[in-house]
Formats: sequence, C-alpha cells, structure tokens
Amino acid sequence: MSLFSEITEQPQRVQSLLVSQRTNVEQIASVIQQHDIQFIFLAARGTSDNAGRYANYLFGAMNGLPLALATPSLFTYYKRPPLLKNALVIGISQSGKSPDIVSVLEEGKRQRCLTLAITNEPNSPLANTADFVFDIRAGTEEAVAATKTYTTSLTAIAMLSTALHGNKKQWHELEKVSYWIEDALKLDEFIAEAVQRYRYIDQTVVLGRGFDYSTAFEWALKLKELTYIIAEPYSSADFAHGPIALVDRGYPIFAVAAKGRVFDSMYHMLKRLRSVISAELVVISNDKRALSLAQVPLNVPVDMPEWLSPLVNILPAQLFAYHLTRVKGYDTEHPRTISKVTETK
Amino acid sequence: MSLFSEITEQPQRVQSLLVSQRTNVEQIASVIQQHDIQFIFLAARGTSDNAGRYANYLFGAMNGLPLALATPSLFTYYKRPPLLKNALVIGISQSGKSPDIVSVLEEGKRQRCLTLAITNEPNSPLANTADFVFDIRAGTEEAVAATKTYTTSLTAIAMLSTALHGNKKQWHELEKVSYWIEDALKLDEFIAEAVQRYRYIDQTVVLGRGFDYSTAFEWALKLKELTYIIAEPYSSADFAHGPIALVDRGYPIFAVAAKGRVFDSMYHMLKRLRSVISAELVVISNDKRALSLAQVPLNVPVDMPEWLSPLVNILPAQLFAYHLTRVKGYDTEHPRTISKVTETK
Repeated sequence: MSLFSEITEQPQRVQSLLVSQRTNVEQIASVIQQHDIQFIFLAARGTSDNAGRYANYLFGAMNGLPLALATPSLFTYYKRPPLLKNALVIGISQSGKSPDIVSVLEEGKRQRCLTLAITNEPNSPLANTADFVFDIRAGTEEAVAATKTYTTSLTAIAMLSTALHGNKKQWHELEKVSYWIEDALKLDEFIAEAVQRYRYIDQTVVLGRGFDYSTAFEWALKLKELTYIIAEPYSSADFAHGPIALVDRGYPIFAVAAKGRVFDSMYHMLKRLRSVISAELVVISNDKRALSLAQVPLNVPVDMPEWLSPLVNILPAQLFAYHLTRVKGYDTEHPRTISKVTETK
Repeated sequence: MSLFSEITEQPQRVQSLLVSQRTNVEQIASVIQQHDIQFIFLAARGTSDNAGRYANYLFGAMNGLPLALATPSLFTYYKRPPLLKNALVIGISQSGKSPDIVSVLEEGKRQRCLTLAITNEPNSPLANTADFVFDIRAGTEEAVAATKTYTTSLTAIAMLSTALHGNKKQWHELEKVSYWIEDALKLDEFIAEAVQRYRYIDQTVVLGRGFDYSTAFEWALKLKELTYIIAEPYSSADFAHGPIALVDRGYPIFAVAAKGRVFDSMYHMLKRLRSVISAELVVISNDKRALSLAQVPLNVPVDMPEWLSPLVNILPAQLFAYHLTRVKGYDTEHPRTISKVTETK
C-alpha cells in the first residue's frame, strides 16, 4: 500500500517544506534578483515536466518571466545548445540522475547562467551541477508512480515565485495550502466507489487550462502509468482546434475546472461536450455550475486561490488513478515496463 | 476529393513558395539581424502549433536561438503577459483569425518587439498586426484537416532559419525538398492497401524525436481529426518516462525515425517495443534497420538531410490518415464537430 500512503502523506510533506525551505528560497531569490534574468529555461521529463508546465504559467502570471521548455536532445544528440544569455536555467528531477537533464544544467553553467536544481536527491549529479539546490524533502518515494514528489515540486515552484515577488498575501495563502490538500483527501471514499463506472474504459481525454494545464497532464500521466488506458491531456483551446472531432456520444472526458480567470472558457467547453455531444464527464471543480454537468463531480475546497489550485486538484486525480487501478485489477506499486528511475539521453 | 488533391499538390506549393518568397524572407532576416534578438516567442494552435515544434528544433540547432511557446491564456484571460524584452514574436495561423494568437502579437508590438506573422491570409487580423508577413501562398484549403498549409508553414520556417544563417549549402538543400516530397507521394498505393490492417484500431501512440517531434504531433492530430482514433504523440525519451507502461503485446505504435542524430535513440526504442513487448509497428524511415522492425514499413527518400525530413515525412503520414479514414467509412472532407476556422480566446 505504499502508493496510497504516499498520496495521503502529501499535506504533511508540503507543510514541512514550507517551513524548512523558506530561508533557502529567499536567499536564492535575492541572488536571482541581482541578475538581469529575462527568461527561464527549464528542463524536465515525465512528472517533473508537468511541474514545469505549472512553472510556465506561474512565473508568467506572477513574475512576468517567459519560460522556454528545454528540448534536451539539442544538448545531447545534436550538440547544438541554444544561447542562454540572461536565462535562469532550472532542472527538475526527483532522482537528479537523468543524463539529459543534467547536461542542460551543465551547458547553463558553461554559459555562466544561474542554475537551479529542484530535486529529492541533494547529492545527485543534478544537484552537484547546480549553483542552487531546492531539496523537495519528500522522503523516499517507493511507488513507481510519482505523487508526493510532484506536489512538493509544485510547492518549490510556488515558493520561488512568491519569494521573487515578495508579496506577503501570497505567502499567507501558500501557508494554508496543506489544509486545502487535506480537505481534498476526504474525497477518497467517494472516489473508490465512483471509479467502478469506469472499469472498462480504455481511453479518455483530460482537459485543463491555465494553471491547471499541469493538472490535466499529470492526471493523464498517472492514468497511463497505472491503469494502462490512453489518456491524452489538452488545454480546452487546443482541443477545440481539431482533436474534439474524436469525441462522440458517451465518450469519457475528465476535466479540471477550478474557479478563476479561465473558468468561463472551461465551463463553455464542458457545456458543449455535455449538451451538444452528450459526452460523459468526470469533473474536478469548486464551482457548482461545472460540477452539475458531471456524471461524477469531484468537489474541491471552494476558497482556494486559483494560483494554488494545481497543488490541491491533483489529489482527487491521484486518488482516481489509484482506485481505478485496483478496480481494473492491476498492480498499484509496480506498473509493467517502467521503473522508478528512468535515465534518458 | 479535395483533401487528396490538397495532399498531392504539396510539391508544387512548396516549390513555388521557395521561389516567390526568397527575397521577402531575406529582407526580414536582415532586419532581424540588426536587432539583439535573444529568443523567439511563438504563438500557434493546432496544426500551426506543430509547425512551431519544428521551429523550436530548427532555430535551436541552426541559429542558436531558444524558443518559448506562448501560453496565450496569460495574454487573454489572465491579462498578465510576460516581459518580451529582446524577443522575436512569431504568430502562425493559416486563417490569421484566432483572437488569442492575434493578442500575443499585439502585446509584442506594445512592448516594441519585432513581430512576424506566418499565414495563408495576408489580409487577416494577424497579418495586419505584424511588422512582417510571410504569406505561405498555399491557395484555398477546402478540407477541414490542414495539410498543405502545414508543409508551407514548415517551408516558411526553414526559409527564415536559412536566411538568418546565410549558408549556401542549406539553400541548395532546401531547393531540392519538393523532389523528395514528390518521391514520398509514390507511397500512396502501398498505403491505401496497408491501412486495411488497422480498420479496427481505436487508439495508438505516435513517436518521433528531434526535428521529427513535429511530425509525430501532426500525424497524431490528423488521425484524431479524421479517423477519430485517439493518437497520442511522444518523444521517445518522454515516452520512456512513464507512458510506455500502457503498451502491451500487439499494441499499435506509429513512429517516425529518419536517419540523423536522434536515429539511434529512436531505433533503440523501436527494438525494445518490438522484441521485448511485441508491439505492432508502422514506421516512416529511410533507414533499413528501422524499416525491418515494422509490420508496415513506409520508406522515404534516403538522401534527404535530417533538418528537412519533417517536410517529407509528413506526406506518408497524411496519406495514412486519409486512407484510414476511407477504410473506416468516415468523411475525409468534413470531420464531425470541427470547422475550418477555429477562433479561441
């Protein structure tokens, strides 16, 4: 049962990280502020890449910093790394071991950029390469499918953005996030029953937008790793530009639609999917209008701010993937084919 | 039969673009070179976004320019556009009409960046906003699924990269690309027969890496739009970090593996999928080792350079999607739900 216990220990892990790394992140932020950083260059794979998608929106919306997701093969196979003048280079990897991610940070150092490793292994090659290390202190993660290293990576990103912004209101909101996460865990019993209905699905699309674009990707990844269904993540806008064609009557769509700036756009898409196409909807939301459209509504805390919703919304998504795996009769701890540490070049 | 005729007219469209826009692109390049451009900021949706993925690798490998894919909702819903100092802002849209893409270029102008529109409509809102317009001159595209506007957008990107680089050898290679495209069209009859085998698939994964990461995404998009199967694109490296778990004996994998720097990495993945997992493979390649692993090998010209392979490899992919649509009994011209111009905010 290690996957389940790793899911449920997330409120404590996030809370203790907020306390233990506050000074470190404020020091990192003050050094960054002394440099003329014009954009962030971020390298990651798998679950860490989904944390990078959160960083893309958060550093954009809160800090006005554009973010380029690295294409590691330019560094490893093509040996043609781009010029990284005025970039802050960030690598995210729970194991800190994947050679392609390490090589992006090495190149950043060679070009005299500031480099930051966000990792669960402060003695890893990635950490040893970087100028700064943000240790996410998630403890040993035994399950192959990452859960607590994802939420602690999101917490690290939220802390860095807040430290750079220097806004007290944001720190105050961030300090409350573990309570909202705790609240979301209360959906466990409901979800364990609700997944029965999806015993025989073999595919789905997962929709999210804005900050929760990351949640859609991470929910889809957990479904693929654990339940072996093909689950393709989309922003509702990209989805409208073509892929929506594949949806027919009864097609299962999973969606994350928290209150906030992009809610109307998500709600409009969900209404179209339900009323016009008669799709089946599983919806994570804290807005009654979106929840009322769903066959399976998963209600999350109503008072959380939009910028922190990915740290909370992923909990019901993880629980959904966990229980669906059990209902389908698969191994929650050791998915076929993959292992805990994947090293790619 | 307009989709089929639009597929087959691509060699001519690409060839005439290379002649008609050469002077224009060299003028655009010379203005860009007079500015201190440190990165490219690119906005696009759907098929145009896949052209953007090609730009990401090409401008990186050839021009040393990092590329950030815009997240348009930061401009439209969040009203928090990032600072774009020293960015070249590019919008790609065949219709030039999607409000979110236009708003990224408007913000670029407001911040006094150089802005470029790549579009099939030189009198569109996007073109009217930009400092420079690259008219891809694909002619009217009647089929809802974009084909010739994709290859002409790739050609525009290849021309701009080459003009910035100023390398005669590259111009010479580019001038030959329409012959390779013509060659790839000869697979038509073979593909029309080969797709029979996939009459009843309802899902697949599409793999590509490096330059052909774009081809994997565009092949997957055509499959979703036209055949309504869920087709999820991946780089072979990202695929190894989790999603490979969903592949079991006989699972259909489509892959693009042209000769070049990333070939060994793709070949290694294909061998693992075939020998260890007994997956089913459809492979577009010009290397016999990769082709020999496939149940359905699609051989493309052996002498094309890697950087131009996405302009050629997409042809068998388009033909595959077209013929599979017919075999499945669907409408090739008017897919359900979607329309030619999608306007998102």
